[in-house]
Amino acid sequence: MREALRQARKGLGLTSPNPAVGAVIVKDGVKISAGYHKKAGFPHAEIEALKKLGGNAHGCTIYVTLEPCNHYGRTPPCTEAILASGITRVVVGAKDPNPGVPGRGSQFLKEHGIEVTLGVLEEECRTLNEAFNKYITARRPFLIAKSAITLDGWTGTSTGQSRWITNEKSRQFVHRLRAQADAVLVGVGTVLADNPRLTVRLRHSTKKQPMRIIVDTHLRTPLDARVLDRISNSQTLIAIGPDVSREVLERHEKSGSTVVVCPVDQGRIDLTALMDILAAREITSILVEGGSSIIGSVLRKALVDKYYIFMAPKILGGGNGIPMAAGIGPKSMDGCIGLRDMQVRRFDDDIMIVGYPYYG
Amino acid sequence: MREALRQARKGLGLTSPNPAVGAVIVKDGVKISAGYHKKAGFPHAEIEALKKLGGNAHGCTIYVTLEPCNHYGRTPPCTEAILASGITRVVVGAKDPNPGVPGRGSQFLKEHGIEVTLGVLEEECRTLNEAFNKYITARRPFLIAKSAITLDGWTGTSTGQSRWITNEKSRQFVHRLRAQADAVLVGVGTVLADNPRLTVRLRHSTKKQPMRIIVDTHLRTPLDARVLDRISNSQTLIAIGPDVSREVLERHEKSGSTVVVCPVDQGRIDLTALMDILAAREITSILVEGGSSIIGSVLRKALVDKYYIFMAPKILGGGNGIPMAAGIGPKSMDGCIGLRDMQVRRFDDDIMIVGYPYYG
Repeated sequence: MREALRQARKGLGLTSPNPAVGAVIVKDGVKISAGYHKKAGFPHAEIEALKKLGGNAHGCTIYVTLEPCNHYGRTPPCTEAILASGITRVVVGAKDPNPGVPGRGSQFLKEHGIEVTLGVLEEECRTLNEAFNKYITARRPFLIAKSAITLDGWTGTSTGQSRWITNEKSRQFVHRLRAQADAVLVGVGTVLADNPRLTVRLRHSTKKQPMRIIVDTHLRTPLDARVLDRISNSQTLIAIGPDVSREVLERHEKSGSTVVVCPVDQGRIDLTALMDILAAREITSILVEGGSSIIGSVLRKALVDKYYIFMAPKILGGGNGIPMAAGIGPKSMDGCIGLRDMQVRRFDDDIMIVGYPYYG
Repeated sequence: MREALRQARKGLGLTSPNPAVGAVIVKDGVKISAGYHKKAGFPHAEIEALKKLGGNAHGCTIYVTLEPCNHYGRTPPCTEAILASGITRVVVGAKDPNPGVPGRGSQFLKEHGIEVTLGVLEEECRTLNEAFNKYITARRPFLIAKSAITLDGWTGTSTGQSRWITNEKSRQFVHRLRAQADAVLVGVGTVLADNPRLTVRLRHSTKKQPMRIIVDTHLRTPLDARVLDRISNSQTLIAIGPDVSREVLERHEKSGSTVVVCPVDQGRIDLTALMDILAAREITSILVEGGSSIIGSVLRKALVDKYYIFMAPKILGGGNGIPMAAGIGPKSMDGCIGLRDMQVRRFDDDIMIVGYPYYG
């Protein structure tokens, strides 16, 4: 199953809106084939592994990180291919999270005389597709937030300076987070202040670029902003409010961006509504990279599913910087947002804290 | 030397204004005696270890964490006792940090035919007395700051609520930090807001209580504040500005506190001057526990030698709490205070970050 997980990870970030899945076929304790799901519309992991054996795996065991599908989607059900191959045992990592579906694939296989073992490395197999699982059950993107702060919690100085708080290794890791997400999201403030490209720049990456999303109520993104740059082969979506003139909107559309008019809540884009709009566009995961007010909004609206906080070994030492999350916080400590399953990792002297927010 | 360090640690926090020192005497590879410096005015570690052998250690080796003294202080020089005992080899951890003194003890011993080995576990032996080393060289107390914050850097909510940010284990560790310091310091704001006792409350502790210091320019500490409580056998010193009336001052002195008038800088106690006043009172180490404005001041005045930051797995999620360090921070990220030799430790879900600030 470890090897199947390793296979699955090869597809991570490429399979959306499908989950990443890996499969390994074993005969008499020896691995004879392996495969992974490469891209939506392409064969599932089980089929990839079977293909290499000409579809014949008589008496073999297949290890698969996710319960084989039992329905016709873009491809025929894997359960039938397994039956046809002569496989006699199926070892499953995580159950199919599709509402109404869990257990159906295993049930079908058992009914046809196949030995089925469930829940091997289940936690790891499930976590691998935590974004997909959220998307498929809640029909909303899995929202990952990222902040880079000083030890005393500031993401910038009083003048707005924020480059660079964290070190090169931390920033490289953020590129990996981008590569695994369907989209990267920032507020227009970040575009105006930092003019970021928001593309994945990794040395050995052949991964697709995530969509770039700008939350920009009044459409203030300049036409020459780097984030609109099309050289990188990354699409850009601008979420605007209803009061932007047709003329300005069209100028942006002509330059190649997708402009989406969103509902507004107290004068700002309603981020919850935006999540529903993005889910409809099959965006399963989003990395929110700031700035401070977007981070404050998604936290207080309980939209953040996973949070990466990068801390530099620096202290601002004053109370007037740009906070990690702007806006009005709770009056009581009990109103804080908790972070469960927290892990701490170091990138040289930087500290990365990652966990899953839970809300009061 | 490990055993000598273990001996030395028994005295940590009790020997001020002397360093903590441990010694072990070995004959033919077997430990035959050990001792540590228990308290200022009491015998040094070497003498403690020799005493148990009736002063006779012919042909033995002594391991001592700090270079033996060669001068008459409150006790006669250890170098002479070593010579008289018949010891033939001395293994030293750290050099004597006293200005003008380093190497003298070893020199004397070598001149009298003793084999001397220097620098064994030197780093550990030196760090053990980092507070004393600072005090003896800079003639200022070693200042340790401690903050308890949320992951986004807030030490309290907008209403000032701060109890409890961190968990029981973190707070127990703070009691250990208090036990090792000569004094604990807070601003009057903390006294008024939290009414803390600032005493050491550890289950198996026989350690002395640190002095409690309140920075209180206008002497607003109420006479019934817990910090003035004398039951705990801890002394309290209140640092005030020059504009407090004689009458108010005397009322406090009658209740048992020591009141010290300090120079004022821009309407507030000059903390640098206060450090000099405390050094003159043989306070070698101080734990600064807040609040926010005192922490901001000592950081920006470059007074903090070591910083413990306790982070709870909580996010305030707004920009209007009480910051870790109040006041005006630098405009540029380059103006941040760095933290070197940073270590990360966990107390269940709390994270403790400790390091040594360095200033631009």
